[in-house]
Amino acid sequence: MSEGTNPTAGLPETLSWEGGRPGFVRMVEQTLLPGQFTELEVRTVDQMVDAIYRLAVRGAPAIGVATAYGVLLGVQDLVGRPTGDVMEAFADTCGRLERARPTAVNLFWALERMGARADAKVAEGGSGDEVVAALFEEAMAIHASDKDTCQRMGVHGAELIQDGARVLTHCNAGSLATGGIGTALAPIYEATQQGKRVQVFADETRPLLQGARLTSWELARGGVDVTLITDNTAGWVMREGRIDMVIVGSDRIARNGDVCNKIGTYSVAVLAREHGIPFFVVAPLSTFDMSIADGSHIPIEERPAEEVTEPMGQRIAPEGCKVYSPAFDVTPARLVSGIVTEVGVIHSPTTAAAEAAFREAGLEVPELAAAGEIKGSKAIR
Amino acid sequence: MSEGTNPTAGLPETLSWEGGRPGFVRMVEQTLLPGQFTELEVRTVDQMVDAIYRLAVRGAPAIGVATAYGVLLGVQDLVGRPTGDVMEAFADTCGRLERARPTAVNLFWALERMGARADAKVAEGGSGDEVVAALFEEAMAIHASDKDTCQRMGVHGAELIQDGARVLTHCNAGSLATGGIGTALAPIYEATQQGKRVQVFADETRPLLQGARLTSWELARGGVDVTLITDNTAGWVMREGRIDMVIVGSDRIARNGDVCNKIGTYSVAVLAREHGIPFFVVAPLSTFDMSIADGSHIPIEERPAEEVTEPMGQRIAPEGCKVYSPAFDVTPARLVSGIVTEVGVIHSPTTAAAEAAFREAGLEVPELAAAGEIKGSKAIR
Repeated sequence: MSEGTNPTAGLPETLSWEGGRPGFVRMVEQTLLPGQFTELEVRTVDQMVDAIYRLAVRGAPAIGVATAYGVLLGVQDLVGRPTGDVMEAFADTCGRLERARPTAVNLFWALERMGARADAKVAEGGSGDEVVAALFEEAMAIHASDKDTCQRMGVHGAELIQDGARVLTHCNAGSLATGGIGTALAPIYEATQQGKRVQVFADETRPLLQGARLTSWELARGGVDVTLITDNTAGWVMREGRIDMVIVGSDRIARNGDVCNKIGTYSVAVLAREHGIPFFVVAPLSTFDMSIADGSHIPIEERPAEEVTEPMGQRIAPEGCKVYSPAFDVTPARLVSGIVTEVGVIHSPTTAAAEAAFREAGLEVPELAAAGEIKGSKAIR
Repeated sequence: MSEGTNPTAGLPETLSWEGGRPGFVRMVEQTLLPGQFTELEVRTVDQMVDAIYRLAVRGAPAIGVATAYGVLLGVQDLVGRPTGDVMEAFADTCGRLERARPTAVNLFWALERMGARADAKVAEGGSGDEVVAALFEEAMAIHASDKDTCQRMGVHGAELIQDGARVLTHCNAGSLATGGIGTALAPIYEATQQGKRVQVFADETRPLLQGARLTSWELARGGVDVTLITDNTAGWVMREGRIDMVIVGSDRIARNGDVCNKIGTYSVAVLAREHGIPFFVVAPLSTFDMSIADGSHIPIEERPAEEVTEPMGQRIAPEGCKVYSPAFDVTPARLVSGIVTEVGVIHSPTTAAAEAAFREAGLEVPELAAAGEIKGSKAIR
């Protein structure tokens, strides 16, 4: 097979740290895509919380990177101050960031990584400036590792994609959702670069239309053949025999392999099983929340009615219309053919398989959390 | 149980014939709901074809009534002319009307009923004026019978609805889709009037948002408790145990009970089966196309990309984005718990059961059509 061109060469960097210390975050304003390509400069913690809540930056891994950078925005001005002041500002910043998106485990994961690094520096007797310097190093490492992780998931996932494959995806788990080339779309980009022909069907993904606005935008920009469908067409294209596999990302995976992802993913998984179509999830190990036994413990964020009743600011439903709008759903592990991680594919995921993947990657397998200690629970309405 | 109030008392008449002969059709302009309530005056066949194509009037039974009235618009000015001229104008009008929506079997059904009435009058040696008068009578009878049929389906369907039932519906098969109180929503209106508490979850139904724009509008106007969800939330609300039954309408039902309805219905049916939730279809016998053995013979209309990429005129996808937008899908009879008709409920529909229902209703059971003779085939792209 002939080598293809690199479809990700022309894609913008979703977010980046600019200007050293002090610095700021530059990010693609994703709520205006595809009509308008603009970049935001995020200079305060409040601006970062707002950017995460508004989904100007979204996608589990990108939220992890944005969170780490958000911490820097909260501590970077504390020059020559005592360690206690820095740690107080750090704790305050974490508290504000974690309320932005309760379901995104990468947010908590990034805060924990940053916290562990700060704690280690404090334990060494580091000064306030040294703690801040360590946090800068850690945030840069988180972003660099996210890029590398995307690349590895792309390589492992591409092995599952045959030449000529027709792939359905839901929401956007592409370069716009990460600091690298994406999660679900990474295998598609990698397979394309390897010269395989891949055709993608993108669910538009109501209410916020990430599939229509972002997935179709970045795939088309990368030269990948993409066809947009409404969410309710997914079952029918499967029935018509137009789909060979489903690939999606994830916002949080429980220890037993239950997958939390954008609302609608569960329906797609049920439909895929009905039609004998393999259903793959692509997510870094950082998306696993090993502290919860299964998906029933995952708090589901509810979004405001206006996101449904006023898409792009245009009213489509009667005034006062009652709306139920969970942002995510949970697909039980039994419907998941495999989870593609940076260390390989976990086929038919189970608790034992997830634990084994963690051990293979040299990661500690944490204990299950007590009932009151589950990440994100406090933010649930 | 105490008698409830009549929820349909405050609903507008979806369409009506005004002014005798010559007259015109007044209809609710459904593309502007719920933001704007306006009525159209349709005075020519071309205006009627346009209204049907644009979905200013939509819903299988309402299209049947609109088609019959469209025929009147094509012949009403032929005063004192020979029978041959009238029949020529009739044939020309039919040809223009049948290209407006190829999937809606009620359109063809109405043309056949009008044609049979005209033919009978011609066979009696009737004059041109007498033929036109007969067509007027027939169109009025079609509308009156649609109202009566809706009422009967409501009564039969209400028996399936328990007090406190939580019902999911897709698209709009309500009063706005018929000349009466609706198909799928008729049992809900009837049950509410009987004093049962009914809670409805309405799929928004992309691309044209009939659920968000029309179903939530007419149910709320009638005082029925309705909650709007995006289409991709349907599976999750079932998984969460929030749904007791599904009730939808249909645009065409094959002799074996395969049900063609708005895109997304098939997905809902698969999801309902996965969760052990009964899935009911409400449709008059006129929606059955007994000339086709099963749903594989139903031509599926494809709609323009802009309906997906520019909802309510607002662009949500990149320029030049490829789109696949079938307007309908086909739910196999094995997923259908029952079809509620004006003569009763066909439980677990089969070819034999459909034939029996026709015979009970005193209707002739037609022969299967030859391959080239299936209604609507010619309009398929």
